Amino acid sequence: MNEVDLVLNHAFVVTMDDDYQVFPDGALAVQGDSIVAVGTTEEISSSHKGRQVIDCGSKALIPGLVNTHTHAPMSLLRGMADDERLDVWLMGYMMPVEREFVTPEFCRLGTGLACAEMIRGGITCFADMYYFEDAVAEAVAEAGMRAVCSQAVLKFPSPDAESFEDSLAMARDLVGRWRDHPLIAPAVAPHAPYTCTPEILRASAEIALELDVPIHIHLSETLQEVEQWRQAHGMPVISWVAKQGLFEAKVIAAHCVHIDGEEVQALAGAGVGIAHNPSSNLKLASGFAPVADMLKAGLRVGLGTDGPASNNDLDLFEEMRLATFVAKAVSGDPTALPARQTFAMATRIGAEALHLGELIGSLEPGKRADLALVDLEQVHNTPHFARNPDSIYSRLVYAAKASDVTDVMVNGKWLLRSRELETIEVAPLMEQAAMYATRIDTFLRAREDSVLSKLVAIGGAEQEESYEVQIKVRLPDPPRVVEKLESGGVDILRTAHYVEYDSYFSFADPSQGRLRYRADQFVDEAGRVFNERSRLTLTGPAAEREVKGPVMLSRSRFIAPAQHSARFYREYFKPASETTIHKDRRRWLVGFRERAFFVNIDRLIEPPLGTFLEIKTRTWSRYDAEEKAGLILELLEVLGVPNAEPVTEEYPDVKST
Amino acid sequence: MNEVDLVLNHAFVVTMDDDYQVFPDGALAVQGDSIVAVGTTEEISSSHKGRQVIDCGSKALIPGLVNTHTHAPMSLLRGMADDERLDVWLMGYMMPVEREFVTPEFCRLGTGLACAEMIRGGITCFADMYYFEDAVAEAVAEAGMRAVCSQAVLKFPSPDAESFEDSLAMARDLVGRWRDHPLIAPAVAPHAPYTCTPEILRASAEIALELDVPIHIHLSETLQEVEQWRQAHGMPVISWVAKQGLFEAKVIAAHCVHIDGEEVQALAGAGVGIAHNPSSNLKLASGFAPVADMLKAGLRVGLGTDGPASNNDLDLFEEMRLATFVAKAVSGDPTALPARQTFAMATRIGAEALHLGELIGSLEPGKRADLALVDLEQVHNTPHFARNPDSIYSRLVYAAKASDVTDVMVNGKWLLRSRELETIEVAPLMEQAAMYATRIDTFLRAREDSVLSKLVAIGGAEQEESYEVQIKVRLPDPPRVVEKLESGGVDILRTAHYVEYDSYFSFADPSQGRLRYRADQFVDEAGRVFNERSRLTLTGPAAEREVKGPVMLSRSRFIAPAQHSARFYREYFKPASETTIHKDRRRWLVGFRERAFFVNIDRLIEPPLGTFLEIKTRTWSRYDAEEKAGLILELLEVLGVPNAEPVTEEYPDVKST
Repeated sequence: MNEVDLVLNHAFVVTMDDDYQVFPDGALAVQGDSIVAVGTTEEISSSHKGRQVIDCGSKALIPGLVNTHTHAPMSLLRGMADDERLDVWLMGYMMPVEREFVTPEFCRLGTGLACAEMIRGGITCFADMYYFEDAVAEAVAEAGMRAVCSQAVLKFPSPDAESFEDSLAMARDLVGRWRDHPLIAPAVAPHAPYTCTPEILRASAEIALELDVPIHIHLSETLQEVEQWRQAHGMPVISWVAKQGLFEAKVIAAHCVHIDGEEVQALAGAGVGIAHNPSSNLKLASGFAPVADMLKAGLRVGLGTDGPASNNDLDLFEEMRLATFVAKAVSGDPTALPARQTFAMATRIGAEALHLGELIGSLEPGKRADLALVDLEQVHNTPHFARNPDSIYSRLVYAAKASDVTDVMVNGKWLLRSRELETIEVAPLMEQAAMYATRIDTFLRAREDSVLSKLVAIGGAEQEESYEVQIKVRLPDPPRVVEKLESGGVDILRTAHYVEYDSYFSFADPSQGRLRYRADQFVDEAGRVFNERSRLTLTGPAAEREVKGPVMLSRSRFIAPAQHSARFYREYFKPASETTIHKDRRRWLVGFRERAFFVNIDRLIEPPLGTFLEIKTRTWSRYDAEEKAGLILELLEVLGVPNAEPVTEEYPDVKST
Repeated sequence: MNEVDLVLNHAFVVTMDDDYQVFPDGALAVQGDSIVAVGTTEEISSSHKGRQVIDCGSKALIPGLVNTHTHAPMSLLRGMADDERLDVWLMGYMMPVEREFVTPEFCRLGTGLACAEMIRGGITCFADMYYFEDAVAEAVAEAGMRAVCSQAVLKFPSPDAESFEDSLAMARDLVGRWRDHPLIAPAVAPHAPYTCTPEILRASAEIALELDVPIHIHLSETLQEVEQWRQAHGMPVISWVAKQGLFEAKVIAAHCVHIDGEEVQALAGAGVGIAHNPSSNLKLASGFAPVADMLKAGLRVGLGTDGPASNNDLDLFEEMRLATFVAKAVSGDPTALPARQTFAMATRIGAEALHLGELIGSLEPGKRADLALVDLEQVHNTPHFARNPDSIYSRLVYAAKASDVTDVMVNGKWLLRSRELETIEVAPLMEQAAMYATRIDTFLRAREDSVLSKLVAIGGAEQEESYEVQIKVRLPDPPRVVEKLESGGVDILRTAHYVEYDSYFSFADPSQGRLRYRADQFVDEAGRVFNERSRLTLTGPAAEREVKGPVMLSRSRFIAPAQHSARFYREYFKPASETTIHKDRRRWLVGFRERAFFVNIDRLIEPPLGTFLEIKTRTWSRYDAEEKAGLILELLEVLGVPNAEPVTEEYPDVKST
């Protein structure tokens, strides 16, 4: 008779060992941090004497669930922006707010809340990736959970680092500090191929190999990413990453939604662990990962919740149901991904995907005592058909809920007893979270109040204010003006020819001004497009324009290069209305009386408003503006249109004659 | 100051009225069975005095959720057969068990459990379709829920009726008994086009029009159904159903997964209410319903759980999340089906789909007091961003769980208070359900024990036992035998030519015999296939075969026409191994000494085992068998192969020479 710390008996033990053994009246013995025996209640009772013995009252005793991919601190951003496209969600909301709010304190708080939620739902281990990951590890250790804590590394400045060199140094520090901790597995997280440079990937792999820790990375999440990669590098994402030497390390790859058969083989050959995140992939419309193919190729595909800001919860019961439902529907085969295999993804296979298969993932002697009790005697899980040995998995996957978890243990220590958290006091955390939400609301409200501040929030520091002097007149005879221009009355410094597509966004509050998204196509002499660029211009409201005779002064023009599509800005700024102008522009930069002016001849194609002559120049002072206004009138005369009727409206407001 | 029965105040009231009004500190007044006022707590407090006043402590007060399609009594069959294809699930498991177990008592019990589960999850109204629907209505009324109770009508005998005329009479009785009940809306449910005749659809429509009750029907659930319909009737399912006059009635159509743009328009024109069942459609791999298109066309698309045997729970929070997730992923657009619209599907639009929009679906004065309180102050729903007015829907759809529902009222009466059921005592129902499960397990175990009884369970009464006398020999020179046959030594009564594909299923226990699925292609003289048929034959184990010299007697052959595909039988019988034989068979029915014999010349194509001659005849007694055995040897001589080596194995066991 072995004396042990604890015997759990009269449970429906679901071992998830290689033979998928179950013990309908089963028991498990714990000594210290580990499982020392599993079997029938009769066997264990006759071989092990527990200093404590707990009757589990027929509850299911399962290995703790393994969440293979999340960003725990983002629980503080849950529900901040939903029903948005990935780029708007990420670059319009998440990143600006993160830049403003993410600190070690933020990360500790968010992780504490995430741990509370995960523990309640039967999760004992998760793989995290975020900023200030040292603070995340602290909160996880305090909660008593197990986690792979991965320090994010990106090529641009992040909330915790000015440069990727700093991030890599933080990753090294993280490993040094946590590598011997019983619950924390530190890791390096080059965020994704498109947010990293080849040097970052190589440096990350070096750290991982040198210190024997895993790499955690997002791979092939969206079709856009994959297509851009193929265009830019002439090879699929996975091949490119392999070429950087990343797969020499132990890799945990999140998503892998858009990969082909060869990439599946490459990942399998490299022993990469996969984190499949069904809620996130569906909610962000990233697509359907080829889960069945990956499993068939021998890949370890675990389940992940992804961050709570794109899910919006941390519930592996939901992910299990979604994973099997989607696999069935996409393949058209309801026998695909049966309940038992799905449950394995959430436990043993998930642990293997995190390269922790030796330690956790099943209830077997020698493994850590990471486990959960689930009460299946619920109205929503009644009745129980004992005939089919797989019906226990069916009950766990198709009908059980996170709220059916009653007890959770990690490393031999209870974290949840009779639905009460043992290591986390939730109320103060929720209060602090509410305070953060209020601050973020205020920040976003202020930003949303002004189109300019929304622009600054995503455009970074590249906007600039300018002050322009310009005149615009209808041009009945364009060839004559061109003739005058080219006949030597002015110095032609530069000429250009564009086709321009302008989208003007107007807002309910006209004092916000108008935002113009312009796509310029550069046309050569043969009329062929040889280059393109996009720019964003915020013009002040009409009231800020000052008309001085026929010449107009306008202030408050903010210009930024448009890094995103018109669609992005439309969804981000949500204009009240939109007008589009399609025109042909011939442009001359001319020297006239030792000043430079732009002369544009604009032929409006859609709507077909006719042809206009614009003369404009930038100015810096009122005195200078008045002088240039005079020069513009002189220039107009030189070009042979002295008495043309001035047009003071912008093109969207011009009426057709 | 109006005195009313009840005022609920300090709730986050989500009205779901036409303007989507919300009152973050809101109140609602109830008088009798109805809502009499909704507004801010301040407004209602100053205008209405409640005989009872309940402070809702900031919980969300929502319209009761509407489950637009289920089969409530099937809660007793939850988890009985999962990860099976639709036909195996339905015809292999559900229908045989229903034939055996479904009674009014079964329906009352199952409905009671289903009501308990639905009430706990905030559902106040559901549309049901099953057998003995009168018993369902009784259980619903007792639970105090609201339901559309639809009596199923099918063309074949069902657990509650020998004929569809009986079912239609039951539907009339149901309407007569329940039409004036405040909670029950009786309805007629022609099950589906493929399980009904045109007469059933027309008779159902007549009853529905005459008595002014809805029709509840499954439409276009699977691709197979839709394709078969187009082949058989030359038109899509929806057009065909419309042609039967069904859409003159108020229709609730479940599924509508495989419909095209014109069918969407036809449904919209007819004002058909749609029940979208995402869990069921995914779990059974039926496909992705065009929800966004249907909503765009103005169709009222509600959400349904479908029966708990294909889901496996009755949780509209899950269905909401699934509906929006899947709509986003399938369209590739994460802005599709935003949270607010999804929540409308589960409330107001769902009520409209059931043709109950005047009565329920939103919190508005004049509507019935059907409502629920949801506690959003949960760790998994923290924090709350107040900036975005739609964030309340986001919290309800993306993060809330059924277990967050604390209180539910129907028709002015509490059914759930502080998570305790007020009208249903669950424990005895769960005990009875466990007893049913044990009985069903026993029934299925007995059936699964024997291939024959599994065959009887699905094949109905058409199997028959036979007793055969036969000889089989290798045939080195087939043309010579054909010559002999046709030269007049025997009377040729009939000739035929087939190509046969045989799948032999073997089982771990050889005493189970072997099951052969045979697909015969009938070939004409030009070698063209002009007809096909499939048959299922269970041969006894080798031990039951008696070899008498070269002639073999075999008993225990059960033959049934194969109504399903080989795939169906493979998944239903789960053989331990399978062998396939592809052969060319020329067959003569010959008269010889006033007895009839079959003479087969079999050329085995795959595996290429050579050519065989078989002579066989059926027999009824040992005496007759011995006589015929002698005649067979004589006939062999007439055909010129007197000394051929007999082969006693069936083709799968024959070794190649």
